[in-house]
Amino acid sequence: MADYIESLQRLSEQFGRLPGVGRKSAMRMAFAVLELTDEQAQEFCDAIADAKARIHLCPNCQNLTDRELCPVCADLSRDTSVICVVEDARDVLSMEKVREYRGVYHVLHGVISPMNGITPDKIKLRELIERVGREDVREIIVATNPTVEGEATAMYIAKLVKPLGVKVTRLAYGMPVGGDIEYADEVTIYRALEGRRDF
Amino acid sequence: MADYIESLQRLSEQFGRLPGVGRKSAMRMAFAVLELTDEQAQEFCDAIADAKARIHLCPNCQNLTDRELCPVCADLSRDTSVICVVEDARDVLSMEKVREYRGVYHVLHGVISPMNGITPDKIKLRELIERVGREDVREIIVATNPTVEGEATAMYIAKLVKPLGVKVTRLAYGMPVGGDIEYADEVTIYRALEGRRDF
Repeated sequence: MADYIESLQRLSEQFGRLPGVGRKSAMRMAFAVLELTDEQAQEFCDAIADAKARIHLCPNCQNLTDRELCPVCADLSRDTSVICVVEDARDVLSMEKVREYRGVYHVLHGVISPMNGITPDKIKLRELIERVGREDVREIIVATNPTVEGEATAMYIAKLVKPLGVKVTRLAYGMPVGGDIEYADEVTIYRALEGRRDF
Repeated sequence: MADYIESLQRLSEQFGRLPGVGRKSAMRMAFAVLELTDEQAQEFCDAIADAKARIHLCPNCQNLTDRELCPVCADLSRDTSVICVVEDARDVLSMEKVREYRGVYHVLHGVISPMNGITPDKIKLRELIERVGREDVREIIVATNPTVEGEATAMYIAKLVKPLGVKVTRLAYGMPVGGDIEYADEVTIYRALEGRRDF
């Protein structure tokens, strides 16, 4: 029946393209839009157009920003000699939540994945190497996701950067805090064992 | 940090207002919009504006439509002497999926809920009564949700419509198909017992 209401169907398809939105949720969102006032719907459209128009990559670290530099690069109190390399801009948000890290970031916008046609030149690796050559970098912390592609990308970065005399580190593997050993997978337990530390 | 990227924050707030979308999902959707091409983002905006502009209530049954009449009312093969009364337009979609019902609908756009200030005049009840007076209606199937408000609304409709000589029925209560008696609540089991039928 909804297929008969073409404009509703089209709107729900738009929502359905967003990550984590199934067909039922998409339809529910489309119905919710119909219940918005005209002003609210306009605001929604403006927010989409505005975000698309204003947000670009920070020329320094490739993070998203609507200013000249991203908030981290613009913050002069950050330690620019330590660069944390992450897969995408959302990872910067997660790292920043910790409030412990005072270095800067580099956003790759992807990981090397030859199976999906993502070769090293398709992600922001060249920009990272240029940055290491240009700035006085002491350490690169590779914080790609602990997946096969994330690992491979981390190794690739280490190989490229180490010859430049920069220390390359990787986030620690182990048991997630609050996790349950009973439910942890073998690889995680193995890595936690391997990385065990003295009290 | 995302708060620094104002336009991203604003977009994610818009998504966060949709039903079933938490803060994290909203941010994920906002990021997804940034990855759309300009044309795709424009399409999204157009779909919102279009749906808002075109979709209105069917003058007959109050269902949503972008034509003159809704698809059900426009379908001359439907039995207009049976009206199924539902809470909102999504319920029409669910009923239509069954492909068994050949009557027409009436969408209330809400249920009576004095606690929330929704009195009978705030939902499309007057339109239902007018319709019963105008058309040759044989039966009204009340398919409001099995909640306290849905029940009260069903009783209210029965009281209004029965004196007009129209049969009023209610959807059966009982065990959902594929459900598990072990996990069913007492009221459902009680209703299932009460409504038991001969083989």
